[in-house]
Formats: sequence, structure tokens, C-alpha cells
Amino acid sequence: MPSERTWGIRLRFYYNGVLPIAKNLLKGSAVLELEGIYAPIPTPFNDDGNLDLDALSLNFDKWLRTPLDGIVASGSNGEWPLLSFPERAALFKACADLSGGRLKVIAGIHCPSTKESLDLGIEAARAGCDAVLVLPPHYYKGQNSREGLLAFFRTIADSVRLPVVLYNMPSNTGFNLAPDIVATLSEHPNIIGIKDSSGDIVQIASICRDTPEDFGVFAGSGSFFLPSLAVGCSGGTMGVANLFADACRDILLSFRKGDLERSRSLQLSIIEINQAVTKWFGVPGLKAAMDHAGLYGGPVRPPLLPVEGKVRQEIGRIYDSFRSNYREVLS
Amino acid sequence: MPSERTWGIRLRFYYNGVLPIAKNLLKGSAVLELEGIYAPIPTPFNDDGNLDLDALSLNFDKWLRTPLDGIVASGSNGEWPLLSFPERAALFKACADLSGGRLKVIAGIHCPSTKESLDLGIEAARAGCDAVLVLPPHYYKGQNSREGLLAFFRTIADSVRLPVVLYNMPSNTGFNLAPDIVATLSEHPNIIGIKDSSGDIVQIASICRDTPEDFGVFAGSGSFFLPSLAVGCSGGTMGVANLFADACRDILLSFRKGDLERSRSLQLSIIEINQAVTKWFGVPGLKAAMDHAGLYGGPVRPPLLPVEGKVRQEIGRIYDSFRSNYREVLS
Amino acid sequence: MPSERTWGIRLRFYYNGVLPIAKNLLKGSAVLELEGIYAPIPTPFNDDGNLDLDALSLNFDKWLRTPLDGIVASGSNGEWPLLSFPERAALFKACADLSGGRLKVIAGIHCPSTKESLDLGIEAARAGCDAVLVLPPHYYKGQNSREGLLAFFRTIADSVRLPVVLYNMPSNTGFNLAPDIVATLSEHPNIIGIKDSSGDIVQIASICRDTPEDFGVFAGSGSFFLPSLAVGCSGGTMGVANLFADACRDILLSFRKGDLERSRSLQLSIIEINQAVTKWFGVPGLKAAMDHAGLYGGPVRPPLLPVEGKVRQEIGRIYDSFRSNYREVLS
Amino acid sequence: MPSERTWGIRLRFYYNGVLPIAKNLLKGSAVLELEGIYAPIPTPFNDDGNLDLDALSLNFDKWLRTPLDGIVASGSNGEWPLLSFPERAALFKACADLSGGRLKVIAGIHCPSTKESLDLGIEAARAGCDAVLVLPPHYYKGQNSREGLLAFFRTIADSVRLPVVLYNMPSNTGFNLAPDIVATLSEHPNIIGIKDSSGDIVQIASICRDTPEDFGVFAGSGSFFLPSLAVGCSGGTMGVANLFADACRDILLSFRKGDLERSRSLQLSIIEINQAVTKWFGVPGLKAAMDHAGLYGGPVRPPLLPVEGKVRQEIGRIYDSFRSNYREVLS
Repeated sequence: MPSERTWGIRLRFYYNGVLPIAKNLLKGSAVLELEGIYAPIPTPFNDDGNLDLDALSLNFDKWLRTPLDGIVASGSNGEWPLLSFPERAALFKACADLSGGRLKVIAGIHCPSTKESLDLGIEAARAGCDAVLVLPPHYYKGQNSREGLLAFFRTIADSVRLPVVLYNMPSNTGFNLAPDIVATLSEHPNIIGIKDSSGDIVQIASICRDTPEDFGVFAGSGSFFLPSLAVGCSGGTMGVANLFADACRDILLSFRKGDLERSRSLQLSIIEINQAVTKWFGVPGLKAAMDHAGLYGGPVRPPLLPVEGKVRQEIGRIYDSFRSNYREVLS
Repeated sequence: MPSERTWGIRLRFYYNGVLPIAKNLLKGSAVLELEGIYAPIPTPFNDDGNLDLDALSLNFDKWLRTPLDGIVASGSNGEWPLLSFPERAALFKACADLSGGRLKVIAGIHCPSTKESLDLGIEAARAGCDAVLVLPPHYYKGQNSREGLLAFFRTIADSVRLPVVLYNMPSNTGFNLAPDIVATLSEHPNIIGIKDSSGDIVQIASICRDTPEDFGVFAGSGSFFLPSLAVGCSGGTMGVANLFADACRDILLSFRKGDLERSRSLQLSIIEINQAVTKWFGVPGLKAAMDHAGLYGGPVRPPLLPVEGKVRQEIGRIYDSFRSNYREVLS
Repeated sequence: MPSERTWGIRLRFYYNGVLPIAKNLLKGSAVLELEGIYAPIPTPFNDDGNLDLDALSLNFDKWLRTPLDGIVASGSNGEWPLLSFPERAALFKACADLSGGRLKVIAGIHCPSTKESLDLGIEAARAGCDAVLVLPPHYYKGQNSREGLLAFFRTIADSVRLPVVLYNMPSNTGFNLAPDIVATLSEHPNIIGIKDSSGDIVQIASICRDTPEDFGVFAGSGSFFLPSLAVGCSGGTMGVANLFADACRDILLSFRKGDLERSRSLQLSIIEINQAVTKWFGVPGLKAAMDHAGLYGGPVRPPLLPVEGKVRQEIGRIYDSFRSNYREVLS
Repeated sequence: MPSERTWGIRLRFYYNGVLPIAKNLLKGSAVLELEGIYAPIPTPFNDDGNLDLDALSLNFDKWLRTPLDGIVASGSNGEWPLLSFPERAALFKACADLSGGRLKVIAGIHCPSTKESLDLGIEAARAGCDAVLVLPPHYYKGQNSREGLLAFFRTIADSVRLPVVLYNMPSNTGFNLAPDIVATLSEHPNIIGIKDSSGDIVQIASICRDTPEDFGVFAGSGSFFLPSLAVGCSGGTMGVANLFADACRDILLSFRKGDLERSRSLQLSIIEINQAVTKWFGVPGLKAAMDHAGLYGGPVRPPLLPVEGKVRQEIGRIYDSFRSNYREVLS
């Protein structure tokens, strides 16, 4: 993190007038700047359905050789609702250890209850993760008032000893976190950014406009990465980054260098494989693509069902098609 | 599974589609007939936020003196997503013990993962509950195929040693369980009914039309109880039954006696208090109304927020208004 | 209309303190009581696509021999958006003449602009129709404030010399007319009722609860007719009444006689044919069913496409299936 | 169809997929290239509510001094549903005459019936407009099959003697025109582009990816103009262009020059005024802003209601705020 940046954060801390991130600063820990390409990694299970940390290690070996900036553990792609508390804690520890500081690790600590989320935040901090990711409450979505949402996220941000990243994921939660609430929360010194998977580009633009410059806004999908960069996002967390971190980074760098033509061309061609491993075939599709790509995908947990037969072949075809397109671009 | 049950299932299999009133032959068996008025009870917590089984016992003392037929434990009103596995198991045991066979107990065993749901089903059977209630998977709703939903519910129904009641609750889950899937599942000998909270009366009518006569279809809300009875429902599970089981039963009995005028009048007047403790103010509203009514409501678990001040007063006013209306009807 | 009823209307008129229906009373015209079974008739076109009033006459010959109470002309089933102003005026005249007072005629006068709606209301009154039916504005649905909706309907009701029936049809308009607005409008002396096609039974019940007793609430579909009666509706307007007015009336009379079993049985079995000629296959499906039934259906206007081949056969099959079921019930 | 047009079409056919820049060779032909900044103009009415072509002329005087490329007449902002057929024809004539070839004129010919749309297309051609804009059918949206939509648009495109621009406007129509249908229609030689107002940026990107290069894809709102450019749009039609065509063009030119910072800054700051004159306050808001800006806004047609009092002031404030921001950028 460049020194001007650190100074910016200090200033911000100063003007907010309160001290919730003091602990981080005193600990000498680096406050995470939410920037770049993150992969929301799937959680590997062995054939018995148990957490397979060896397989995770194999995947990290490969991810560490890509231009990824970080990973999200126990997010939607990580089947968080299907993991137990101890499994999530173990996963945080393994990810932090395996990354060895070379990849940032954002720990998805969302649980339906506030208390359990806080407890899991303690585990994430203990494991050495860099930040936590938190969804809005959503089962009782009819009771989600502005006041209640502010209270929930502030409780998390006041208590968890890691920077907090908001997570808006309406297609799974059935609830959209409105941009005015995000703007208010962005004033909290320990809430450093948002991953917005809504795909509502005016909403994403409004968040970029209404939050401080050091509040990171992340596109939550590879399907709208470039348009999100165009309105001010600092990076993205995208399913396809598990497979093609290089191409994702290429979109980002081409954009920053002003090579819009290349960035657009990659964006348009990456949509299909990204949709295949998210919207169309979900986590089962992502794991199938990882198997195809020489990473460890492995089984999903029921009630999710594995993709099989023709769908599996179709995913392989889409994967290969993008890879050969991208190789052409590179050559 | 007890032998009577097995026998019951065989009979139903044997006569399926031919003698849908076979259940009448089984009156002595353990097969639950889903019928009457059920209260989806809130889970009592003490001021420290822990499960308060003494408060539960006080509530049961009162519920046992009402015309309730049964209760649902750890359903949506029971804050199931905010309870731990051991808490839900303890709750099942307490409810079964406190009812002493006088109230049927349906145990909400839904967990995001199939395996955990099955494990909780074992606890429900061990506790002596009468049936289990299961939601469709819903976080990964985009992956909910017909095939996957059938597989999920069949796995539960094949394994859990208690009759299974399906539970459709789109306003919380963001997913509607389609009637054709319900019709297919109704053929399974261990799936005995559905609680449909969608409020889609054509859907409820279609389910009544397309399922065997001994498949119980329950209105999932007091706000559309009479219209559901009119299209063939056998009863209902309704928030307001925690407070006014007598009035709910009155709607049912008036309907069955052909006193449609009385049934309608009660239905129209009960909507407001039912909406207040469900759609408008949620579980916090229900707990406030219970406090007001002399039952134990107590605190909710965060991220739910208690209702306070004017809203609390408004709930009290709505409660009193219905009570005095109903007393007039009775006198 | 019974004399008590008339008196009730006078009283109502008196307490509203204004005189908009004075004209009707002074003209000696009968104020329509919205009650019974109405068919929302399709508009017949000849093979050249022109209005075919001879075919209409043939259909009326048959409808007049059924227990229909009235018809709706130029409603959704009448392809109102595809008719010109003069065609709608001609249709009103023809319907009023053909019914000869034996069928009530409600004229759908809705146009996107208020002024054109008012002009069409003049035509409806001139033609001798009994009431007019009016949708809420819906193209600019984002601008539909409570205040604007009240102003719109009051303008219509103050100006048109016929009683006004509100028309809620969210599946076509993409906009739901909220029950509190309906309740406020029900106080207007010239707004006599509503046709609610939303299928939201709690909404329909709330309207029944919150409007004066002489405000007619009509189920807007045959698929939820009985549940609507159960919560207080006075009748219905249903696609299937074009084909099976007798069965629709049977649902109503059985309900009123307290023969709920018969009413429910008919309701459940009529859903399929009603869905076929509305939700599933639309106006093209209704016209195909009319052709099959020996009425004049004929072509639809583009952009609607005729149903053909297998779908046409399927509609015939569904029609025949209901007819033979119903004959069994009758015998 | 004029011969230049025919020739143009042949060329496009011939070179399809090989020479997508063939259109550059045709600069002299009548083929419209959908490119740049278009204003969807409001239709001026005088105080009696009649079409006010003098006011239109005053507005054109000002628009002709801006960098606008064209205008859309009788689109959503033009209150098309509230205009009569002759009014729309007169409007087309006036716009074509007033533009004198200096502004392209796209005529919104959509009517609910296909036949009336075709008749209006004749008027548009006769008036000398450059293209026509057509919505998908939407009142009977439940009957909108892929097959039916293809047939509808092909009928229009085969018959109307002007290039056809598709128009997707889900917030008004309640129906989304799916990208695969757009891709298929883009193969028709007389369908030259689409205005997509959905705001679904992945959809817009997919359309850019799946249509020929000379198929123009227009952002249908100023709120997501830059992200649309980033994925390949060739321009936009935006409410705010009636007021700030220079700033809209600035977004486009900055983008093309690679000055992303300026383009983004303008995009973020223009959202508020664009939302004010579209989503928030609709056509009444746009007309109020035009009055404020020294253009002729004037009254709207009922059932639309004018904005008044505080809302009118708020719109003025938002307008002034953007104008002074933009002046700062310019200086």
C-alpha cells in the first residue's frame, strides 16, 4: 500500500472521530485496500463429503501462480450455508496459511444470527484472514428496515477485529441492499468496501459516487466487470477468476492502460464461461469446470446436485472455447 | 419406524388412488392426519438470549386450555435460522414432553444442508414429535430444478422416521414450490401434507385437486384461512393461533357447520391481527402481542429487532380490538 | 333490486353529501347492483379482421339462453387495446341492443388518456350500457401515486353518466391497484364496485371488509371464484363464463345454498378450462374454445397469434373433459 | 423503399460478418447509422392540452444549437400512449421539417395493434423521418412467445419503408425483450438497432456481442450511458439529453478519446438529474426541468399529473446543481 494511501486512511480515521480500527493500527496490521481480482473459491470436499484441505492446498498451488490478488472463502461459491461452524473456521485457517500473505483472504462470516456471525469473525481474525464478508440478514427480509440494517452491520463492524466488506447478493438472498444504506455504512471506519453482485449498474455507479474514495467497490461477477470498472469500481470478485485469473486481470489492466478495445473484447467473450459457472449451473457448474481445468472441483453437498452428462460436456466446451479465444488474444 | 406406521404405509400404498379414505381404517395407527388448527409457536428466550424452556412451559399451560390441535416448533415464527442444532433438538424434546400427546407436535427440521436436516429429523423422532416440516432448498434457488427438488424431499421422506409435511414459504425463501411438484411428492407414502404460506389461492386449490384425499393441505396463514378451507384445505397453521386459537377454530367449525356468514365475518376481522403478527411486524410483532396477551413473548434474537414504542402500542390496540370484536360475536 | 337495497343506496348517496349520481336517479335509470355471473366477451372479427357484429349476434343468441347476469364488452378478453374508438362505440351499441335489457352490459372504456376514456364513456352511456369498467393508468406506472390514482378515478366517476366499476388486472398492466385506494374510492357515490383479477385473496378479502356493503366486489377470474365468494364477493367476471355460464352459476348457487361440497368440486374442476382460456393461452385460447363449443370465436388481431395444431386440440380436450365432468355432476 | 436503401441492404447482406464497416462505404446512402446522442423529446401541449407545434419549433431552435445527433418523437418521454394517431403523424412531420436533415428523427410508431403500427409507419416515412422505433407487444405479455415476437417485429420490418429500431422498456411495459430474440432480429436487413432501457448491463453486453457490428445498440438512459459504451454501445437515447446534450456528448467523446476519468466523473454526476427527469418524476419531471431550463415544457396530459411545489423546486435545484458542476468541469 503506497504511503499516500495510508495517510488517506489515517485522515479518514481522524475525521470519523472514533476508534474502532485503532486495534488494527496498533497491531501494525495492514488495513486491507479492496482492489484487484479476487476468486470466490469453492470449498473442496472429498468423496465422503468431508472438507478436503489437501485438495484445497493443490488448488492454492495453482492459484498462487496466477495474478490473483486474493480469495473469498466461505462465500456463495464456497457453499457457506452447507458448511458447519468448525468447518468454516478450519477453512479460514487453511486459506490464511496456504496463502502465506501472498493472496489476501476475505472470510465469509455470514450466519443467520448476529451472534454466530460475530463468533465466526473471531475465528477469521484468529486464523489471520485479512477481512470479513457479510451479507445482510435475509430470511426475515420483510423486517429489514433501514434502521435494522444499519444496526446489524454496525454491530459486526464494531466488534469484529478485521475490516468488514459488505456483500450484496440479491439472486441468492432475495433482498437488495440499497445504495443509500451502503453510503451511510461507508462512513464507518471499519467498513472498507462492498461486493455488489446485483448487476444493477446504476446502483453500483451510485455507490461509487456516494462513498469515500478509499471505500472499495467490487463488481460481484465477471459478467459486468468492465462496466463496473468504468463507473469506478476498484476490482471484482468473480467465479471465473477461479479459472481464468489472468484474463480477469487483463480486463482490469487493459482498462487502466486505456486499451478499451481489448478490455471490451475480453469482457464480452468472458461472459459465457462466467455465466456457466454462476447463474446457469451454479456451484456444481463451477466445480465441474474446475475438474475440467485440472483444478480440484469435486463433489457438491446436497441438496446441491452435481452436473452430469451433457451439461458437464457443455461446460467443458464453453471452457475450452474461452481458453482458445484468449490464447489467440494473447498471441 | 413403529410397526403400525409401516402397516399404515403399506395400506396407503396398496390403496393409493383407489381408496383415499384408507386413513379412516387406520384411526388407531400412529399416522398423523394433518387436520385442524396449529400454532407456529415462537421460541422463548430469556433476557440473556438463551432458550427459556420455563417460559415455554408457561405458554403450553395456556395453549393446552385452547382448542389447538397442534403446534409447529422451529418454524419461521420459531426463528429457526437463529437457533443452533442442539437448541432445536432441546426444543423438540420440550414440546413433545409438554404436549403430552394432547397437542400434535410438528418439528421444523429444515437446515440448508440435507445431511443436517436428516440429523435433526433423528432428533425430532427421538423426542417423540409427530411429524417434521421441511422447506425446499432456497439459498441456491437458481439451481432448484424439478428433479433436484424431488430428490431432496424424497431423500428426507425416505430417511426420516416421522411423517413429512412440505413447507412452502415464498416470502421468506424467495422461492415458490410449484403445485405440480407437490402433486408428485404427494404420492410418496411418507409425505403426508403441505403447509402453503404463499397465499396463492389458485395454487392451493390446484394442490387440493391434484393430491390424494388423505394428503393434508394446510393454509399457512390466518389471513387466507377460510378461502383455503373453501377449496379443500383440512386446516391451517397460523401465527394468530398462538393468540386466538378459539377464533381460528370458530372459523373452521362455522365453515364446517355451513354457517358461512359467521365464518366469513371472523375471517375478515382476524386478518388485521394476523397481518400484524406476521407480514407487518414479523416475529417481533408476534412476541410483542404475546407479551400483551399474557403469554411469554420475550426478546427476539438479533439481527431481528424488538418492536418498541408506538408500534408496540399499535399491536396492543389491534389485539384488543380483535378481542373485543370476538367477544361480541361470542355473546 | 329489492326496495331495501334502493333505500340503502339513497342513504349512501345522502351521506356522501354530493350529487354525482343524481343524474342517474333523475333519469330514473336503475343503479346497477354488481352481482352474479358476468362473461368478459371476446370481440368477434371476420376473416378480414373487421368487427363482425353478425357473429356477435349469434353469440348473444346463445348467451341469452344461459344463466348469465351480464357481459363485459371491450375488456381484456375483448382485445380492447386492439380496437379503435369507433369500433368500441359500435360494440357497446350492439351489445346493449342485443342484450335488450336481459343481460347487463358493462363497457370497458379504459384508454391510456383520461380524455379519451371520458369520450368513450359518453359513447357507452349513449349506447345504453349499464356501467363502465376502468383500469388504473399503467404505462407510466412509476408515476402512479395514491393521489394521482384517486384523481384519475374520481374524474372518471364525476363525469361519466354511468356507474363506474374499477378494474384491477396486474398480470396485463403490471400494476396492482392497492386495497386502501379501492376503499377510499368506494366512498364515491358513482363507483359501485371492482373487478379484481389479481388473485390475491387477502387483498380481495380486505376490499370486502373495507368497502360499503353495496359496493360490489367481483372475482376477476373463474379460477378463484369460490374462495372469493367465501370472503364476501358478490359475483365474478370470468373467461370461462363465455363457455360454461351454467357451471359458474352452479358454483355461486351451491355456495349460497350451503352446498359447499358441490361448489368446491365444481370450482376445482373448472380451474383447468378457465386457465386454458386465460392465463395459459389467452384470448387466442378463448376464441379457439368458443369455436370448439359452437360459438363464434374466429380470428384474433395481430400482434396476437391464433392457437393452432396441438394447442388447439389440447384446448378442445380440456373443454370436453370439463363438459363431461359437469354433465356427470348434473345427472 | 428507395433504391439507395435497397442497395445498402444488399451490401450489408453481402458483406455480413466479413466487412462490418461496410456501412462506412455507404455514407451517402439513406441507411441510418444509429450512433451518437439522441434526445427522446417530450411532446409540447398548450394550456388547452392541444399539440403545440410552435413550442416544438422553439425547442428545436435550441436543440439545433447543441451537439445532438438526433431525436426520438413519440417515445415514452413523448407521451405516445396519450397521443392520437393524427397527432403522432403531425408530430413526425413537424420534427422532420424542423430538423431539416440536421437532426436525425426516429419516429416512435408503436401502437397496441400491428395494423395501426404499420399505418403509423407509413406516416413516418411520408413525413421524412429517418427510422422508426417499435416496442414489443406488452398488454398481453403472458402470450409473448419467442415465435410471436419474431413474427411481430419481422412484419413491421418487412413492411415499413424506414429502418427499424427495437425498443426495450421493461419499466413501462412490464416485459423484457430477451437478448437472444434481439440477436435473431438483428439478422433482418431492415432492423438496424435497439434502444435498451432495461439497465441490465449484462444483457446489453450480450446484445453487443451477439449482433453484427453495424447493428446499433443504444443505451436507453443517461444513467448507464458510460457502462453501456464500455461494453460496445454506439450511443444513447437519454432524457437528460433534452437538457444537457453537451454533457452527454462529453461523456461519449471523453470515452472515445480514452479520458475515462472525465467520462466517469460526468457519468456519476449526471445520474441525479437524469433520474429526476425519468425514474423519479417521469415526464412531468422532464417538462418541469425544461421549463426551468428555458425550453418549453408545459403541461402533461392526464392521467399524468404535473409536478408542483416542492418537487418542482427540487427538480430546479438538481438541474442547477448539475449545471454548475458541469461548468466547473468545462472551465
